[in-house]
Amino acid sequence: MLVEQVGRGRSVIAQRVSELESAGLIESAGLGPSSGGRAPRRLRLAAERGLALGVDIAATELVVGVADLTGTVLDTRQQAIDVADGPEPVLSLAERLADELVGTRTAPVWAIGVGVPGPVEFRTGLPVVPPIMPGWDRYPIRDRLAARFRAPVWVDNDVNLMALGELRSDPDAGTAGHVLYVRAGIGIGAAIVMDGKLYRGANGSAGDIGHVAIPEGGSIICRCGNLGCLEAVAGGAALARDGRMLAESRQSPALAAVLAQARAIRPYDVAQAAEKGDRAARALLQRTSALLGGTLATLVSFYNPNLLVLGGGIARAKARVLAAIREAIYRRALPLATQDLRIEVSTLPEEVSGVTGAVHLALDEVFSPANLELWLEAGSPTALDHSATVTTTLPATRPRSI
Amino acid sequence: MLVEQVGRGRSVIAQRVSELESAGLIESAGLGPSSGGRAPRRLRLAAERGLALGVDIAATELVVGVADLTGTVLDTRQQAIDVADGPEPVLSLAERLADELVGTRTAPVWAIGVGVPGPVEFRTGLPVVPPIMPGWDRYPIRDRLAARFRAPVWVDNDVNLMALGELRSDPDAGTAGHVLYVRAGIGIGAAIVMDGKLYRGANGSAGDIGHVAIPEGGSIICRCGNLGCLEAVAGGAALARDGRMLAESRQSPALAAVLAQARAIRPYDVAQAAEKGDRAARALLQRTSALLGGTLATLVSFYNPNLLVLGGGIARAKARVLAAIREAIYRRALPLATQDLRIEVSTLPEEVSGVTGAVHLALDEVFSPANLELWLEAGSPTALDHSATVTTTLPATRPRSI
Repeated sequence: MLVEQVGRGRSVIAQRVSELESAGLIESAGLGPSSGGRAPRRLRLAAERGLALGVDIAATELVVGVADLTGTVLDTRQQAIDVADGPEPVLSLAERLADELVGTRTAPVWAIGVGVPGPVEFRTGLPVVPPIMPGWDRYPIRDRLAARFRAPVWVDNDVNLMALGELRSDPDAGTAGHVLYVRAGIGIGAAIVMDGKLYRGANGSAGDIGHVAIPEGGSIICRCGNLGCLEAVAGGAALARDGRMLAESRQSPALAAVLAQARAIRPYDVAQAAEKGDRAARALLQRTSALLGGTLATLVSFYNPNLLVLGGGIARAKARVLAAIREAIYRRALPLATQDLRIEVSTLPEEVSGVTGAVHLALDEVFSPANLELWLEAGSPTALDHSATVTTTLPATRPRSI
Repeated sequence: MLVEQVGRGRSVIAQRVSELESAGLIESAGLGPSSGGRAPRRLRLAAERGLALGVDIAATELVVGVADLTGTVLDTRQQAIDVADGPEPVLSLAERLADELVGTRTAPVWAIGVGVPGPVEFRTGLPVVPPIMPGWDRYPIRDRLAARFRAPVWVDNDVNLMALGELRSDPDAGTAGHVLYVRAGIGIGAAIVMDGKLYRGANGSAGDIGHVAIPEGGSIICRCGNLGCLEAVAGGAALARDGRMLAESRQSPALAAVLAQARAIRPYDVAQAAEKGDRAARALLQRTSALLGGTLATLVSFYNPNLLVLGGGIARAKARVLAAIREAIYRRALPLATQDLRIEVSTLPEEVSGVTGAVHLALDEVFSPANLELWLEAGSPTALDHSATVTTTLPATRPRSI
């Protein structure tokens, strides 16, 4: 079986298996059913030999998780943050939560995956001019965590990790050839999956669509400093801002009631009000969805995916929102580009997909053939914990297997 | 050497070489320099054993070329057409020109590549709802030419073929990992190259950006029936239309003179007038370039290429146009996405790149491992000339080696 699956000779595999066994990475799981000859020996990954940490830094929330070597998340901690407070408080908190999660577990941390809500140069793990993360530009997240936990660290854009988490949890999405994963919430971003692999582009920024200019953007100033960005017009903050206007102008009785009581309007309130039949809230939600759908139509024409997955806050939206997005895509995208397109909603909650993806990123990298080669002799991936070593083993611009 | 390059065992290669030799596909080219042992035998492709035809159908021009098996174009014919006249007159003319080119050559036609100015379902070779090709929707170009020339035929979008021609002719572009090739002329389209391979998406329509909605599109009606398409605002026809307005309103003395004499304004006239210092023409050209650049900024943010090649009519534009496009991209795209981005102009004239790409498409496909396997036994690829056979051997959605 292994011989067929791996497509290598029997002796090469036997040697590899024995190396992995002496490193304690795989172990025997008894004998399998014989197909005539000698009963085959079954092997399994020694899942509890090491731990993987996942750190998912979102704009207003931090999730840290600990997983075994198969990527099964064992426990998580979640806490509200403001990413704009900068790396020091956010990473200190992440370190504390990770310490709690590792706690009395005896297995060592073998790999750490980190997601941040901004563009990351994947080769170096550095955030580069991230629009909503003041103070994080080129901050050495990887070096800091690698030194703290004596384990190799990989950093990526949070949307890439959500897509990875989704693909690993949804067998259907995992096998679709060309997937566009779109996270729409406070931030808007996309991840590109090609023949089952995350596509990161030349510098790791592929999919960063939150700040592209959109037709209906007009002169709305975005927090990034540009005019008419997608996020400024169709993101969660825009929905809250426009919802507040509807409340203050009393066009929306439902939102006016929320504002009077809570003194703030959240995107969720607009969705709730629309759901309850408030007409102004419904119209606003409809318009925002159509604006997002218009940009997605451009991306569908350009990339021609066969599956579009909507994740983030929008995944909690009701049928009405999705219908508006679908309608905009089918109306504006090229007929051939939508001929076989499926548009679906993420099956995982945002917090879960991000941290799951972070753990899988770390495991994919630490067990990549090149990295495995590097640390097998030392017996443990802590030998990889110098960032220079880690970096040079990673091809800079090639998509990696997910 | 072959053993190292191909990464297969010596005996497998020896068998393959002998198969190819008996098919007359490769021939001996004497002995190479010895590196100690027996002098190696040199092999070369028997370039003149067969012919490849390239048919490049543009909106207003048809180019047909004949090439040897290495892809070297031996001769071409070029003629003005209107693609909107439909498949019958255009393909009849293509067949006649191909007959002339094949003429008294004795080698058989082994493969035909065809480019059309619209979306093509690559798997079936059918144009699908092509916006500027009335009468061509699902027209069986492949079956018609395959029956006429008794050779296998592959059909693709013309921009993909121009990108392929460019990559094969420009070693620099050929090795860049992530290339976005943009053809801007009467039509606007893009081709996506990923790790040296054309990326066609799920249905073959990837890169079709001519009819995406753009921020400044307003209520301009496109020939495709939608509002505010990129092509309707920043394509060559838009340039001519707006140039005519400048002429009629006498805002542009240079264009008014052209209109008085020639009774029409071509995109080229606007560029010429701008070059000669006509201020209105210069402003128009600047604005059109900035609009195109704005859409390219979105695509650069999304795809994060390391090389953007501008081809088509715009490649003949002077520095001023390119500066405006570059400026728009650097201003709007994410800083990380443009960090290592090179923006260059196509090195091949449009007519040459299209037909070169068509020939290379045909040769890539006919010599793909799967197809080679199919026809080697019969001794000639004419055995592939039934479209059903051809189609099923081609994976529908995977990018192919270029």
